[in-house]
Order: sequence, then structure tokens, then C-alpha cells
Amino acid sequence: MNKLGCQSANEIIIFGALGDLSRRKLLPALCQLEACGLINEKSRVVGVARQTYNLEEFKAIVLENINNFVNETLDEGVLARFMSRLVYQQLDIKEASAYTNLAETLSAGNLSTSNDTRVYYFSTSPVIYGDICDGLNHANLIKDNDRVVMEKPIGHCLESSKVINDQVARFFKENQIYRIDHYLGKETVLNLLVLRFANSLFTTNWDRNSIDHVQITVAESVGIEGRWDFYDEAGQMRDMIQSHLLQILSLLAMEPPADLSAESIRAEKLKVVKALSPINCTNMKEKTVRGQYTDGFLNGVVVPGYLKEEGANTISKTETFVAIKAEIDNWRWSGVPFYLRTGKRMPAKHSEIVVHFKEQPHNIFKDNYSDLPSNKLTIRLQPDEGVELQMMNKIPGIASQMNIQENKLDLSFNDTYNDQRVIDAYERLMLEVLNGNQSLFVSRDEVEAAWAWADSIIDAWQATDEAPKPYAAGSWGPVSSISLIARDDRQWVE
Amino acid sequence: MNKLGCQSANEIIIFGALGDLSRRKLLPALCQLEACGLINEKSRVVGVARQTYNLEEFKAIVLENINNFVNETLDEGVLARFMSRLVYQQLDIKEASAYTNLAETLSAGNLSTSNDTRVYYFSTSPVIYGDICDGLNHANLIKDNDRVVMEKPIGHCLESSKVINDQVARFFKENQIYRIDHYLGKETVLNLLVLRFANSLFTTNWDRNSIDHVQITVAESVGIEGRWDFYDEAGQMRDMIQSHLLQILSLLAMEPPADLSAESIRAEKLKVVKALSPINCTNMKEKTVRGQYTDGFLNGVVVPGYLKEEGANTISKTETFVAIKAEIDNWRWSGVPFYLRTGKRMPAKHSEIVVHFKEQPHNIFKDNYSDLPSNKLTIRLQPDEGVELQMMNKIPGIASQMNIQENKLDLSFNDTYNDQRVIDAYERLMLEVLNGNQSLFVSRDEVEAAWAWADSIIDAWQATDEAPKPYAAGSWGPVSSISLIARDDRQWVE
Repeated sequence: MNKLGCQSANEIIIFGALGDLSRRKLLPALCQLEACGLINEKSRVVGVARQTYNLEEFKAIVLENINNFVNETLDEGVLARFMSRLVYQQLDIKEASAYTNLAETLSAGNLSTSNDTRVYYFSTSPVIYGDICDGLNHANLIKDNDRVVMEKPIGHCLESSKVINDQVARFFKENQIYRIDHYLGKETVLNLLVLRFANSLFTTNWDRNSIDHVQITVAESVGIEGRWDFYDEAGQMRDMIQSHLLQILSLLAMEPPADLSAESIRAEKLKVVKALSPINCTNMKEKTVRGQYTDGFLNGVVVPGYLKEEGANTISKTETFVAIKAEIDNWRWSGVPFYLRTGKRMPAKHSEIVVHFKEQPHNIFKDNYSDLPSNKLTIRLQPDEGVELQMMNKIPGIASQMNIQENKLDLSFNDTYNDQRVIDAYERLMLEVLNGNQSLFVSRDEVEAAWAWADSIIDAWQATDEAPKPYAAGSWGPVSSISLIARDDRQWVE
Repeated sequence: MNKLGCQSANEIIIFGALGDLSRRKLLPALCQLEACGLINEKSRVVGVARQTYNLEEFKAIVLENINNFVNETLDEGVLARFMSRLVYQQLDIKEASAYTNLAETLSAGNLSTSNDTRVYYFSTSPVIYGDICDGLNHANLIKDNDRVVMEKPIGHCLESSKVINDQVARFFKENQIYRIDHYLGKETVLNLLVLRFANSLFTTNWDRNSIDHVQITVAESVGIEGRWDFYDEAGQMRDMIQSHLLQILSLLAMEPPADLSAESIRAEKLKVVKALSPINCTNMKEKTVRGQYTDGFLNGVVVPGYLKEEGANTISKTETFVAIKAEIDNWRWSGVPFYLRTGKRMPAKHSEIVVHFKEQPHNIFKDNYSDLPSNKLTIRLQPDEGVELQMMNKIPGIASQMNIQENKLDLSFNDTYNDQRVIDAYERLMLEVLNGNQSLFVSRDEVEAAWAWADSIIDAWQATDEAPKPYAAGSWGPVSSISLIARDDRQWVE
């Protein structure tokens, strides 16, 4: 048994085991952990869903999904071992009385000592998280050392998130609750901690004295992928900014934590979100841009606008693009804008953080280079994960004594670590749950602080009667997004 | 005419035109400038030497050397144009009365207006620089806008350098004198200015608050190359430290100059040399190590020790290796050692500067990495010129949440600028002379300050009766060199 694996046996109970997330991500991630020897030999994986299947049918579905979503060929022994852990429990998840069936199934296993931990993974709609808790409680299935994993979105706003968190908190303490933001499981996002806190060159430059501004871009080329109903209720602000972009922002901007414990990291991240300068009706127009894609041309094909997507409500004002000038009102970041930008139907799937250092106060190379570019640290989240530092060097050559040029010092993860398998975020996060480490999960306080800030912006948008600005699918968003940053005499990195 | 070329016509008069430096470096460099269109169409190149040759014989020698020492195929038209500029003047350089012959040769040319500039390149032994000046003066060949280029070594110590500089100063003003240190013409050395002053990331970190120490290594694999008499008089301290290493140190450590003018840069460099903490009898043993190579094994062959080289004086105590802990007593660098190391018969030709930034004050990754390496900026001078930044990144992989590793962000000049011809230092410096820009040449004040510091060390060595420490050819110098830096709990970069 690998020492990194969980020390005590777990039972992993997935509610919504036949849903999209479970099939594409959770079960393949568990199977990968199996291949790494990171699952305790006694652990079982219990799929819970509404459908009436027998175990063999469930196993066939799981196997099909592993074949589809695991990118490498797994050893037959690994597959057989993983399959032997599977249990299927048909259940009407909303029916508390039915959970006694689940209890019977679980007690039929070998795991019955009080040291064993059950991991309840809620891979269902958040509106029934409370029902699941009720059912588990009804069947007396909740122990102090059990864990619950919750997928976002936790609510639709601050109030609704409180309702859901309260429902779960009736039965589980905060230290039992693992709220997923899968960006926190990405290698390049974890590397933010290393970049910032293992490199004195950055540590000493990571503040308003050295940094001019930061850009965070999370661009998707996909549209809404047939999920009109879900997406139109949410929009890009709730779906991306409130969660992923604020998490990245928090890791980038937090004070150095005293250690890597969940308590320390989450406390520092929370302080950042709480220090975000409020955006409301008074400043919404200058600080935010929302857009909605129209017909366009992307990757060689014509794609329909948002209002023509299947199932579309043609009068929707839901935004599919958001740009925000976020500011952090604290000592480290006063005066340093964090420009956030995320949208669907952008020209490419492309996520990156660009830290723009300040310009040199004095330019001694002005004869050759009147406008000296500032240093930039780029952290590429996807695709081609990596880190690059853009800096100035002399161009060799006789042409001039001081002909200089911006170059990149580049570290591509794919090139550098090409013998390493790329770890999916869910694999990392699932392992952390099994190991009982909450540092890569979002605390309730963080969720609520993020909602409070996001709600204020959404409220300000709704208070106007304006529609989002149109942008052609395949473009980088509305022109207003360019103006947002151009007003500060800056521009988005191309 | 390329705008970078000299605006007025020049006559370039090379004393010692048949010597090693002239044949290998100066004439090929001029021919390369010809290929770049950087020599005024009226300019002539006048070779002066003792030997009796006619012009055709001189041209044949020049052509042979261009073929041997220019690394690319030159256009026939370029070669013909360059050859047509050549003039040869046989002269007993020590005989002032003979210079009237030179004057006649020069006046026979087309250049006779007072705007034309003559460049007198002293590529002879420095002991006859004064004789050349006397001769030029005797033949009335010195005008206010003429220039003189002097090769090192200018003297053997402070006093003898003053004698030479005084001899030249009787006839030439300081702003007419171009003292060569060819390291100042190297692309990577020039890039030091760009790295330091065009990159805010380094500008704000370039002091005792951020930098722990600096290492400068100039290692040669060659021995004394048959020049026993010259070398045994000089030794590595006079030949390398007093000139090249102190020039590199000055560029690395100087305060930011207000502009790129010769006046500004040379003033700032001078301040560094003057601020060097004196090394004398009281601290010589703890601050310096000198070595002398013995028989050894290098690049697959057995090579003889210094005392067995051809022409060797077998009781010589001349050092072929020096390591020094240099300190700069000023506000920026107090407490930051600059470790200098240079030697002959080292394992490889290898010159680099490594700036070691300070360690992180607090290590939150101690569970995975108890001894976090500090960031390092490496400037490779030769071979494989380039810049690399060593920093910590997370290793992708499931093995541990925070498995980290030191990586390099690398900028190799060869890879990045592979379409650019590598410019020889002499080509750069010759062009600067033609253009009348003194910034890449060493001022008299610098030469004298460097001698003053070096003399004190040499005197301290001579005051003891100790021989240099032996080191095997093919090793990195005496063990004492390792101890020198190990006493400070540091070590030379491998």
C-alpha cells in the first residue's frame, strides 16, 4: 500500500452515480487511483441512483465509461480489482425511508468498525443535498468521521447557498464537508502556491510596489453544450466568476499562509474575497462588462448565437461573457486592478494568468526602445500548461549597441515533465478527500463571501433594463471589454 | 551607407599589424564590418609593422587570415573592397624619425581634410606605446579628433600603468583614448546592462535585501599556450582578475546609470572598483586562494603541469588560478560577497555569472522539501551564451500534493537568435571606436583603481614565502578554493 493512500478504509458512496459527472470524472478518477495503488484494499465504491439496474449492468456501464474517459490502457488486474469494489444501490434519493436499504447494503460489507470512514459524494443537483442528508440521518448512516463531498453550484445566490449549507450543516460539521471547485485540483493552479511561496524572486515582488496589474482569462470555445435550462438560470457570472475565477484570484492575491494546512490557506483566501471592493449600481458600468454571443464563425464552422441555441428563450438577458475590473482593498493590493475575463464561444479554449510587473521608472534604452515593455509572468492553465517569464534581453548582432527585445523564459509542463501522466483535477481532489485534507476545498465562509460580492454585481445588472452587449461567437467578447481595460491605458494580452 | 556606420571617414592605422591579435581578430573584424557596410567608403586600413613587405605580400597575409578566422563565406565584392583599402607601411616603431615615412604614406591618400579622423590602434607590447606616441608627434600626425586604441595589459601594476598612461596622455586627451577590455564587447556582457536595467523584476531585487551572493567564474581549459615568458610575469591575477573579472563585477554591481553615455557608465563602474574592500596581509588568507596547475588529465589526454611547460622556470610561484571573496563596501552591497574564480587548465572552457537570491524566510513546503533552494539567475558568458532562471515549480503527478522541484526557465541565445550571426567582441569594439563611443572602453581611473586593489593582493601574496596551492590540470582548482566559499556555508555551482 502506497504511503500516500488513505490509512483507514473508506466506503465511497456516490449519489448520482449514473450522472454525467460521475461517469466522466469520478469513476474514472477512482479507477486511476486504483491503478496508483492509492485505494485501501478494503474500500468499496457504492453507486447510488434512481435507475433499476443489477450489479452486472452497473459494472458494464462503469467499464464503458472507464474505457471512454481514461486516456491510457489499464492493467487487467487493476480493472478487475476496481470492478470487484463496485456495489450498486437503487434508491429514490428524495425518499428518506428508502435509505434503510442503503444502510443494509453498507452493513452487508466488511466495513463495520467505527474507525472506517464513509465518503458521501453528492453528485446530484444541489437542491436535493438536504434530502440526501435527511435520508442518511433517517437510516442512522452519519458518523463523526464521515465526509461529504459537494459539487458546485452551491446555490444561486448568497441566500440560497445558505439554505443548502444549512441543510447539510444540520448533520455534518464544517470539517466533514468538502466543497469541490475542480480548478483547485489542477496542477497549474496548485503550482501557484509553489511559484509564490517557494521563489523569493516572486515573494519579494508580489505587491503593489512591484505589480502593475493582473489579468485572469478563462476562455471557452464551447457554447452551452445543450444545457440551456441550467445555463440560462446561471450565466457566466454564477457559473465561472463566483467560483473558479475568484478561487484563482484568492490564491494569487492571498497573504503568505503560515503553513499549508487547510485552516491557514482557507483563512487567507477568505480574507482576499472579503477585501474585494464592492461593485454595485454606482460603479457597475465602469467596472463590469457582460456580453452574450451572437451567430459567428469558430474553428471553421458557423455556430448559432446564444438566443438560437436549442431550447433557447429568445428574450434571455443571461450573460455568456463577463469582464470585471476587480480591486482588493487591502495593504498589499491597493491600486492594483485584477482584470477578470471569461466567456463562452471565444476563439479558443485558453486560460491563463498574466502578472504584469511595473514599468521601469527610468528608461536608459529610450534611443532604441522608447516604450520599454514591463516584465510579465504568465501562468498558462490550459492548454499547454506552463509558466513563462517575459523579459527584455539584448538582441545579438552588430546592428546597434543596445538593440533589445522581449523574450520568454519558458517552462512548459508538457516538455519538462513529459514522463509524467497528467493528473485530472478530480483524481487529485478525490485523493485529498480520501486522505481527509480539506486544503483544496472551499470553506462555507468563502462560498458565502464570493456570493455576497457576486450578488451585488448581478443585482446591479438586473436593476438596469439593459441587455448584455452582443459579441460574435469566435471573438474575444464585446468591444466594451476592450474599453474596460483601455480606459486604464492597458490592454488584454493577445 | 548604413546609418550606424561612422559618419566621417577614418583612417585606421594598426601598429603591430602582423602580430597575433591583429591577424586573428582586428583585420577579420574590420572585414566583417565591411561586409555589414559599416566602413566609410573613403576609409583606408594601414598596417604598420617592422617587416619588409610590399603591399601585395601584405594583402596575401591578410587574405589568408581572413580565410582562417572569419567563420563565414564572404562575398567576393566585399573582399575586393576591403583589400582595396589596405595600405602597408614598414616601420621601425621605436624610431621616431621613421614616422615621417608614415606621414608621407598617409598624406598620399585622399584623406586630408581636418574633419577626418585617424584611429591609431596600438596592437603592440604596451612598453612601446610611448614610443609610438613620440613618433606620431614627431611626424606631426596627432590631431584633436584622432583616436588611439590601446590593448591591455596597461602596465604590470599601478605604477607601471601610470607610466604608460602618462606617456600616451602627453599627446592624447582621455576622450581620445579607447582602452580595450574585449569582455566589454561580448554580447552576453552587454546583455548584463539590459538584464539589469530593462527588467523591473531584477531592478527591484538587485541589492543586499534580495541577493545572498554572486559567483563569477571564468574557467579556461587551455594552459599558457606557449607564452611562458609573458604569462609567468603576469599570472592569473593580473591577466584576468584585474581586467575581465573586475569589469564584469563592475557591470553587475554598479548603481543604475542615468543614461548609456560613456561618462555615466564609466563613472558608475569606477565607483564599484573604488568601493572594493581592500585585501592585504591582514585578510589575504581568508579572502584569496591562488593555485598552480600540476600534471593532469584533460579532454582525454595527459597534460603537463605549469612548471613543466615549455620554457618554464621551475621555481616559479606564479599563480594560474585565483579565487577571491570580494566585497563591496557600499549601501547596496554591504554583506553580499562576490566570489570570483578564474583559472587555466580547468575541466572546460566555461564562464558564467550566477546571482544567488536569498532563501525564502519561511518554508511552508518543509514536509516535502526541507531545504528549499533559492532562486538563481545564471548568465552564461561562454560557451552556449544565454540566460537562465532557476526556480521552484510543482512536479505534476499524484505522488504528493506539493512535490516541488527546481527547474530552469532558459533563454539560449543560440536557440533564440539562431538567425543572427555571432558578433565577435572585437567587431563590436572596433565599430564603437569608429563611431567615437567610449562607453565600452575602460577609463584611466578604472584601470588605476583596479590596479590599486589588485596590487594590494599581489603584495600580500609576495610578502609570504608561500607557493601557490597545487591543483591537478583538469580539476576545478585547489581544495582551498572550495573551502574559501564553504567557510561561508555556500558552495560553487557545479
